[in-house]
Amino acid sequence: MSQQFSSLLLENAVNEFAKLPGIGRKTALRLVLHLLKQPEQNVELFGNALIQLRKEILYCKICYNISDTETCRICCNSARDCEIICVVENIKDVMTIENTQQFRGLYHVLGGIISPMDGVGPKDLEIESLINRVRNENIKEVILALSTTMEGDTTNFYIFRKLAPFDVKITTIARGIAIGDELEYADEVTLGRSILNRVEFKV
Amino acid sequence: MSQQFSSLLLENAVNEFAKLPGIGRKTALRLVLHLLKQPEQNVELFGNALIQLRKEILYCKICYNISDTETCRICCNSARDCEIICVVENIKDVMTIENTQQFRGLYHVLGGIISPMDGVGPKDLEIESLINRVRNENIKEVILALSTTMEGDTTNFYIFRKLAPFDVKITTIARGIAIGDELEYADEVTLGRSILNRVEFKV
Repeated sequence: MSQQFSSLLLENAVNEFAKLPGIGRKTALRLVLHLLKQPEQNVELFGNALIQLRKEILYCKICYNISDTETCRICCNSARDCEIICVVENIKDVMTIENTQQFRGLYHVLGGIISPMDGVGPKDLEIESLINRVRNENIKEVILALSTTMEGDTTNFYIFRKLAPFDVKITTIARGIAIGDELEYADEVTLGRSILNRVEFKV
Repeated sequence: MSQQFSSLLLENAVNEFAKLPGIGRKTALRLVLHLLKQPEQNVELFGNALIQLRKEILYCKICYNISDTETCRICCNSARDCEIICVVENIKDVMTIENTQQFRGLYHVLGGIISPMDGVGPKDLEIESLINRVRNENIKEVILALSTTMEGDTTNFYIFRKLAPFDVKITTIARGIAIGDELEYADEVTLGRSILNRVEFKV
């Protein structure tokens, strides 16, 4: 569908929207026409929120979670149990676990998962920094909360071996979640329960 | 779902995205995280395209189509037949008809349709300006290309009566399109054919 746009500004905005994943050209046009009907101030707020986010966002230097400051709100929070680290793939998983309100420890965001098919190896992930945290801080337990896929199992195993020399308990979340499911689609009750019932990692 | 965001910037961007129609909070988060992975320059282009569109967009002073200039590209085009006006509800319909490449006349965008249930009367639409065009310009034919709904029929009838005093042929697009369907979802072949086979408006 090659739309005959009467306005280059409109065409440009639609093209930009259509670059987003899952947004086709018809949806892009619908969204842009919606924005056209909004007050100018609201559209500015929207556009600037995105620009500002991309420009000013930081990643916590301790856990690599997304943050407005050098150290994220979770790592700064003295009420949290700093002897437990929950290892997750990405920042979405941090949010999903926080929503269960079952975990009061800290996080470590790997930024992905070991996947040779996609060319992602241990060096591409924040695994070295996790080991340094275990080495230098007083960590009693590391919870592995990765997706229950083959790649997740591989990553679990890799981290387990890397942490073997240290005096730290290594657990995985209970597999109450169906094998093959992604963390973010799990319901909060199941996910919360699986954190409470976590089991020791055995090879 | 109350997401526990670790970043106010992120929360703000997600909230703004979730205001768009058809975009829920999970989709908003997915889109924002996608933008976070893009180069800063691309996100700026995206945000600024929307802001600039809203700020600088004009509506053609002749046909009320969306435009970058005071008079739109279609009204300025001397190759078009300026004796035929096609009346449509909105700018999306202009694009849909342009895509068929079957119409070489001009347009008139009403900006809606008479709908007492929604509180939209003739005064809220660009009907007076259409009558002025017919009165002051050398218009031979007005094609009514509104949706084939009860509101569309009402609007057709209202315009037909208003244009009765003038020496102008009034036609409607052929009802090759299923009754009750919206123009924008019609396939281009059917819509193109229905413009070629337009029939004289009879009460």
